[in-house]
Amino acid sequence: MFGVTILGNNSAIAAFDRHPTAQVITLNEQVFLIDCGEGTQHQITRYKIRRSRINHIFISHLHGDHYFGLIGLLTSMGLLGRQNELHLYAPAALQDIINLQLEVADTVLPYQLIFHAITTEGLIADTKKFSVECFATRHRIQCWGFIIREKKQPRKIDKEKVLQYEIPSAYYEMLKTGSDYETKEGTVIKNELLTIANTPPLSYAFAADTVYDESIAEKVKNVSLLYHETTYLKDLHERAAARFHSTTVQAAAIAVKANAKKLLIGHFSSKYEILDPFLEEAQEVFANTALATEGVTYKV
Amino acid sequence: MFGVTILGNNSAIAAFDRHPTAQVITLNEQVFLIDCGEGTQHQITRYKIRRSRINHIFISHLHGDHYFGLIGLLTSMGLLGRQNELHLYAPAALQDIINLQLEVADTVLPYQLIFHAITTEGLIADTKKFSVECFATRHRIQCWGFIIREKKQPRKIDKEKVLQYEIPSAYYEMLKTGSDYETKEGTVIKNELLTIANTPPLSYAFAADTVYDESIAEKVKNVSLLYHETTYLKDLHERAAARFHSTTVQAAAIAVKANAKKLLIGHFSSKYEILDPFLEEAQEVFANTALATEGVTYKV
Repeated sequence: MFGVTILGNNSAIAAFDRHPTAQVITLNEQVFLIDCGEGTQHQITRYKIRRSRINHIFISHLHGDHYFGLIGLLTSMGLLGRQNELHLYAPAALQDIINLQLEVADTVLPYQLIFHAITTEGLIADTKKFSVECFATRHRIQCWGFIIREKKQPRKIDKEKVLQYEIPSAYYEMLKTGSDYETKEGTVIKNELLTIANTPPLSYAFAADTVYDESIAEKVKNVSLLYHETTYLKDLHERAAARFHSTTVQAAAIAVKANAKKLLIGHFSSKYEILDPFLEEAQEVFANTALATEGVTYKV
Repeated sequence: MFGVTILGNNSAIAAFDRHPTAQVITLNEQVFLIDCGEGTQHQITRYKIRRSRINHIFISHLHGDHYFGLIGLLTSMGLLGRQNELHLYAPAALQDIINLQLEVADTVLPYQLIFHAITTEGLIADTKKFSVECFATRHRIQCWGFIIREKKQPRKIDKEKVLQYEIPSAYYEMLKTGSDYETKEGTVIKNELLTIANTPPLSYAFAADTVYDESIAEKVKNVSLLYHETTYLKDLHERAAARFHSTTVQAAAIAVKANAKKLLIGHFSSKYEILDPFLEEAQEVFANTALATEGVTYKV
């Protein structure tokens, strides 16, 4: 299971029961949180996300609609007795803000908060099961996108075939890594005959807040699912550019250029009550587009 | 009209659709906000409070459930184009937090935010129509309560009587201040014959977060409406004391000692889903008690 659950799909001021940006990414037993606008902890409760399972939080940039809910979430986790360490990846200044807020409240978190200041593009987390890269987007202040990738899974043993070719079980682990098998007589049995390929690794790119920037398409090339902001409909492209945001057709154009399998659009301006035109406009350029809807989980 | 509208009646972590502390005080055309937990700006929208009319905000202390929603409210007011100056009364460290958060977002508010650091008990605001005093409560960190008082209104002219006694209208303003009238012949007409007393000035005391402390009763003596926290029911008085909070019967005892006309209780622990026992326990000690309910306005 690799999926993205939307907790907030709105920009800036909450409106029409839409909330500021927050997304929960589930990758098998891992749970990640990307951005954390005000009220995210209430959305986590509302959509029954198990907050104790969130071990990695990524904050794209320090505009309030992307992080004002973080300090509340962190302190609530403490009040609820969290003990597991928590990794936080964000622009460096966020650490000063959090430390100041804990200090004035005379609060010490009962768990270790490990702060990873993002300063440059590249790999920021790398484990056996997933990796996370960050990349710069173009916004009014420093802003980072994130790509979460499954690690390539080893090949699976074809149980019928290993019996048929009488391969000793001691060689199974070697087969999973792709090696061929050589019999005592010197006959080589090709790995493809003995194993089954796993599904190719999936990837999710969160392109944060950004003005239309073709270089992002290169950075997120071939991802399985691309989230790209669409604060405005296409007629407001001048306003979008002036405010370092994007429109529907711009988001869709990035998905086309990136060769993404699927596009998810969000960060809608509070000026729009009805969102259908966002989907219609984006789909004219990139058919496999979905509208980020709060409480819904999208498969990567 | 002098009333208190509850936007949040819960302590610490939001639960059962109850929110952290925030109260809107309406005194004729004035609107005040006391405390501003996370999500207060959404509650303001939900209960149709006109945020543009809020010109004075009071923050009791720097535990998150009393101020994490403030920065979001302040920046939203900016996004919505506020231009009127806004007065903020709070412990000094809040100014550093706000300034840091505005700075990292490269945001300049389009209105003047006038910060009044609270350092000692006494009068913190004084206008023709109201005054606000602060007083120290006893909590884990520095914490302030607030008393908002109407100013004593001038006496009203009794229109029938001034005609009957043939008082020239030029003297009406003098009569309102309580002066007697002397005719050319030297006859003194007592003010009480010519004017009607206005209703006595009302007052609202917000006693913030506090452990049971009898000195608070002295500080809020004779107020029309006292808000006192009751985080726990009476059986948990030891836990209340350990956490610098109060119980139902302690809040009610303060109301009795203070000779308050009415008591409003709130700041309920998230451990309680049903709140009826709070009212029952408090009313055994002080009959004229109301349970702070979100969205409800209580007359002072």
